[in-house]
Amino acid sequence: MKKTKVGIVNVTGYAGVELARLLSRHPGVDLASVTGRSTAGKQLADVFPHLAGSQLTIEATLSGVEIAFTAMPHKESAAVVLPLLDKGVRVIDISADFRLKDAGAYPQWYGFTHPTPEKLTEAVYGLPELYRKEIASARLVANPGCYPTGAILALAPAVKLGIAGSHAIVDSKSGVSGAGRSLNLKTHYAEANEGACAYALDGHRHLPEIVQELALLKPEEQPEITFVPHLVPMTRGILTTAYAPLSAKKTAAEVMQAYCDFYKDEPFTKVMASPPHTKHTWGSNICFVHPTIDKRTGRLVVISAIDNLVKGAAGQAVQNMNIMLGLPETTGLEAAAVYP
Amino acid sequence: MKKTKVGIVNVTGYAGVELARLLSRHPGVDLASVTGRSTAGKQLADVFPHLAGSQLTIEATLSGVEIAFTAMPHKESAAVVLPLLDKGVRVIDISADFRLKDAGAYPQWYGFTHPTPEKLTEAVYGLPELYRKEIASARLVANPGCYPTGAILALAPAVKLGIAGSHAIVDSKSGVSGAGRSLNLKTHYAEANEGACAYALDGHRHLPEIVQELALLKPEEQPEITFVPHLVPMTRGILTTAYAPLSAKKTAAEVMQAYCDFYKDEPFTKVMASPPHTKHTWGSNICFVHPTIDKRTGRLVVISAIDNLVKGAAGQAVQNMNIMLGLPETTGLEAAAVYP
Amino acid sequence: MKKTKVGIVNVTGYAGVELARLLSRHPGVDLASVTGRSTAGKQLADVFPHLAGSQLTIEATLSGVEIAFTAMPHKESAAVVLPLLDKGVRVIDISADFRLKDAGAYPQWYGFTHPTPEKLTEAVYGLPELYRKEIASARLVANPGCYPTGAILALAPAVKLGIAGSHAIVDSKSGVSGAGRSLNLKTHYAEANEGACAYALDGHRHLPEIVQELALLKPEEQPEITFVPHLVPMTRGILTTAYAPLSAKKTAAEVMQAYCDFYKDEPFTKVMASPPHTKHTWGSNICFVHPTIDKRTGRLVVISAIDNLVKGAAGQAVQNMNIMLGLPETTGLEAAAVYP
Amino acid sequence: MKKTKVGIVNVTGYAGVELARLLSRHPGVDLASVTGRSTAGKQLADVFPHLAGSQLTIEATLSGVEIAFTAMPHKESAAVVLPLLDKGVRVIDISADFRLKDAGAYPQWYGFTHPTPEKLTEAVYGLPELYRKEIASARLVANPGCYPTGAILALAPAVKLGIAGSHAIVDSKSGVSGAGRSLNLKTHYAEANEGACAYALDGHRHLPEIVQELALLKPEEQPEITFVPHLVPMTRGILTTAYAPLSAKKTAAEVMQAYCDFYKDEPFTKVMASPPHTKHTWGSNICFVHPTIDKRTGRLVVISAIDNLVKGAAGQAVQNMNIMLGLPETTGLEAAAVYP
Repeated sequence: MKKTKVGIVNVTGYAGVELARLLSRHPGVDLASVTGRSTAGKQLADVFPHLAGSQLTIEATLSGVEIAFTAMPHKESAAVVLPLLDKGVRVIDISADFRLKDAGAYPQWYGFTHPTPEKLTEAVYGLPELYRKEIASARLVANPGCYPTGAILALAPAVKLGIAGSHAIVDSKSGVSGAGRSLNLKTHYAEANEGACAYALDGHRHLPEIVQELALLKPEEQPEITFVPHLVPMTRGILTTAYAPLSAKKTAAEVMQAYCDFYKDEPFTKVMASPPHTKHTWGSNICFVHPTIDKRTGRLVVISAIDNLVKGAAGQAVQNMNIMLGLPETTGLEAAAVYP
Repeated sequence: MKKTKVGIVNVTGYAGVELARLLSRHPGVDLASVTGRSTAGKQLADVFPHLAGSQLTIEATLSGVEIAFTAMPHKESAAVVLPLLDKGVRVIDISADFRLKDAGAYPQWYGFTHPTPEKLTEAVYGLPELYRKEIASARLVANPGCYPTGAILALAPAVKLGIAGSHAIVDSKSGVSGAGRSLNLKTHYAEANEGACAYALDGHRHLPEIVQELALLKPEEQPEITFVPHLVPMTRGILTTAYAPLSAKKTAAEVMQAYCDFYKDEPFTKVMASPPHTKHTWGSNICFVHPTIDKRTGRLVVISAIDNLVKGAAGQAVQNMNIMLGLPETTGLEAAAVYP
Repeated sequence: MKKTKVGIVNVTGYAGVELARLLSRHPGVDLASVTGRSTAGKQLADVFPHLAGSQLTIEATLSGVEIAFTAMPHKESAAVVLPLLDKGVRVIDISADFRLKDAGAYPQWYGFTHPTPEKLTEAVYGLPELYRKEIASARLVANPGCYPTGAILALAPAVKLGIAGSHAIVDSKSGVSGAGRSLNLKTHYAEANEGACAYALDGHRHLPEIVQELALLKPEEQPEITFVPHLVPMTRGILTTAYAPLSAKKTAAEVMQAYCDFYKDEPFTKVMASPPHTKHTWGSNICFVHPTIDKRTGRLVVISAIDNLVKGAAGQAVQNMNIMLGLPETTGLEAAAVYP
Repeated sequence: MKKTKVGIVNVTGYAGVELARLLSRHPGVDLASVTGRSTAGKQLADVFPHLAGSQLTIEATLSGVEIAFTAMPHKESAAVVLPLLDKGVRVIDISADFRLKDAGAYPQWYGFTHPTPEKLTEAVYGLPELYRKEIASARLVANPGCYPTGAILALAPAVKLGIAGSHAIVDSKSGVSGAGRSLNLKTHYAEANEGACAYALDGHRHLPEIVQELALLKPEEQPEITFVPHLVPMTRGILTTAYAPLSAKKTAAEVMQAYCDFYKDEPFTKVMASPPHTKHTWGSNICFVHPTIDKRTGRLVVISAIDNLVKGAAGQAVQNMNIMLGLPETTGLEAAAVYP
């Protein structure tokens, strides 16, 4: 079988190098080209010793691929994506540049005017649990943010099925790799280790993405989401705890059943009978979801756990690619999490 | 000046040994007696090398003290506290055995019938920020739980001042030492490291304590608290994020001012202009509080950070002791947190 | 192709469950039976959520397999291995029970008299880099210990080629999972986290194994190895730093070349131009080796890095199985390390 | 009693801010002035929330002090120290600029020509265990490096007493704060966490310092030290394992006794009967030392454990200051380590 040639723009960030890990062993595609900026010309295996087997050289520009993963910082990604689309390359963009449908949100949340608002309509939000069909034929997939992946998968069944309204609290605890590979005092080892903190209390960039998707699930109600991200001292993982008032009288068992039904055919989103641990997602594309009801107050409480770099970034991107190529959705993503 | 003789029952748990650290350097008291069960007869410094200078031998029973700190597991603590009180020893109990005013809550939450319900009335809840005057003359102080300390200090001003109702979400992230020194698979290194999880979703024992104290602050309203504790991979620290609907129209600046006023004379509870990091509380009795308003939804959000073993246990106990003895409240607790 | 049926005795320890992770996706074998003691009767996926896809039930005894992995504590393993051999099952024993050729060493190092000394001669020491041919036809493979794997791979070329004598210092730094899943105060999270220590200074059980193998490489010299293991706060990984006087005048470049030649056909042992980081081995069967010469003192210094649960246990066992079955040696072990 | 006014140059590095923590509570001195470069003009407590009680403003230049701690990077420190000395300020320099007696070593190891070689003779190496008397009257104390402190305290008795020669292997494992507060990919959280590595195999800058001091202890023998530093994932602590051939026939008990005698009057260096854990030094000025003999090979093995920022930097500097001022040597350094 002829393998589809794929490439990664900016392989040297954590999402990019995680894509390289997953794609280099993917049986259905050929990772043919990877690019980096300051590392162009070096061997991928020299920059990243864990990819010891790779023969790839990091290039300055992508070439000869049918599908491209673009893992650039926001604003810069759009500039890379558009020429690729023009050349007929299908693109899975890991950045935020095509996630928001409302071009007007970009200046406010990301500080730039979107160069091609019309592409925002075309782009498909790459959460297979909600948009599998659209992804299959998409030219441009906007791969979800790490926090939105955990938050939306936690709340989607409740919102969609009318169990809860979209007036929710989303309290997320993220490992430090979510902040990227660029140096920053907050992610300096001695600063981040052995401490926990909340941040972005005046509004994190992933909030409009969460709001947009929950609004689409229940158009008759304007979501009111309070989203507070936290940094906790671990490398990978996002644990999200979502709280919402029930809009229908339900028992915990009924909510559990509804979630099980909602996700019953999902290869990667598993409803769990007990609260999940991010440790059990390490390196894998799994999302664990545990819904329950606080019996004293009647509030819905849902916990989700993902690996921020896999289901929250590179793994979900590969899942999207599999759908786009008509491959079995789990191809190249079968490996269990590395525990302990 | 004659120093008051004090002792620790069960010095070998984490709260007990932290008391030993703080009391062994306290200029106003003489740590005269410490007890342990399996370690009785050993030198304290042999069991705990960080207390290298100590000359104390761990005893089987406490003797010759005027104030006792009892750091036993719940249910067992009551059995130790009552004979001490009978002998005229003032007691600061680190366990939960005297925290709840309602004896009926003990069977439900702690699985035992309280032996002396009348002592529950006498016991003073040892949160100086709320009960300083009562602590001063108390014979029996019930030292607050670690989670309740962080939660109540986060919400007390808002509830007391009518800024928010007591219908709140309390999402707490605790370091692993909070689970104690007894062995458990959940706190086995390879299980707890590099992972985060929620637990006790059907009701944590600290919930009734939080509810009780918030109810006392605003008797006209029955609190509805959803409290979800989480374990995150660090040794010390509790970060609490509390969410509540505003009951009065307030700006973030007004809420900040109200909190600053509420805590302005507190030696250990500091209102911060930006979200605190548990790292900055390591080893110290400080509690950092940061209140704000989510401007999109109008919800109150308050973050608090403590060291669970200090302000959440041993440090607060020493603070209570200082108040009981009429010493300056910060005596022996002046050391800054160890950072980084 | 008919797949070989394989099984795991004691799947619930860290080596056992890591075998389950690797074997459940192995394309050449069918993981048909797993056993546990206290967990017999439970679903493997319920005990270990990261194995979410598994349909296996944990059994009390192994059945219907052609190859068995025995991951019992020492002494208990021998009792399980012998009946399996009698039934014609080929065995890869993860314990130490068949690693030492000298039956007389068992009482001294492991505290029991070996039940079948004759099997010690038959057993093949399962380090493919040294015994590939013997492994291929073995009925019983003694899978090497984690520390010996790192130490022997670091020193073997130097000893074998006469670059260094076998009078070496082996200083190893291990992640905490190496101490197993059984509870112990030393591996309690709050005790092991944020601290480093040396242990077993009077002789670690892995010492005779290291000595035995180095002696076999250079029979004319009795090795004098000082081996000091250390515990460092990470879940996985062993970094070994070995020091030995040079027995031949060599430059660092010559030593590097000799190591490269020695390991040039090895699929998993890679000689690196710079010192390796255990992080780059996480979850993979790789062993990185970096030899150099301290130019001031003329001593050989070799660093090796492995994942203690993979190349140091389960991965090497699967590598041995592949050799025994005539499969390509890397089958099921191709996945790159999970970084960061 | 009039308190001596002291100051810190470059309070914003980890050694500087640790000095601020210790000096701000020191009863014998008044921390009167602290300087920083990019932070000049800010409140110390705003930059470092753990110093919440401090009223100090970070200044651009030091003023009005009798003793100065200079915590600048090497080369820059010399430029700051000399004018202070000229003004009659006694200086404790935390950098390496005055540690080496041989001016010729600076170009080789530190890449600059020393501006005032004559000051190298005057400077006293600030290891109280060896130079207490000289420190008392010194104008300029060169505070030892973190690795040399652990290495020299481990080996000094053996070398001085002729138990071992100075042909030793020094294998040190350091927490990440030792690399400082400046940003670097190696100390980026996701890179340093959950991994261990050796570095500086071609010669670490602390080597000449170790060699110099061991040579002074046994002038008749030229030391041959192989020193390999390692980074392990913890914030604080250095565990050093030193190996040396015995030069006299000694039992482990005799060596232990010799070490106990050597350090018997030391307030901070404690000889331990079992191998120490860096955890028990966290935040304190203690150095634990455990000497033993590998009975199989007859080699001396000594373990030492320190907090790299306290006994390895700021705490030792305060200890030196106490000696210089004629204060009890433990003043301001009495606090026990924070455990767990």
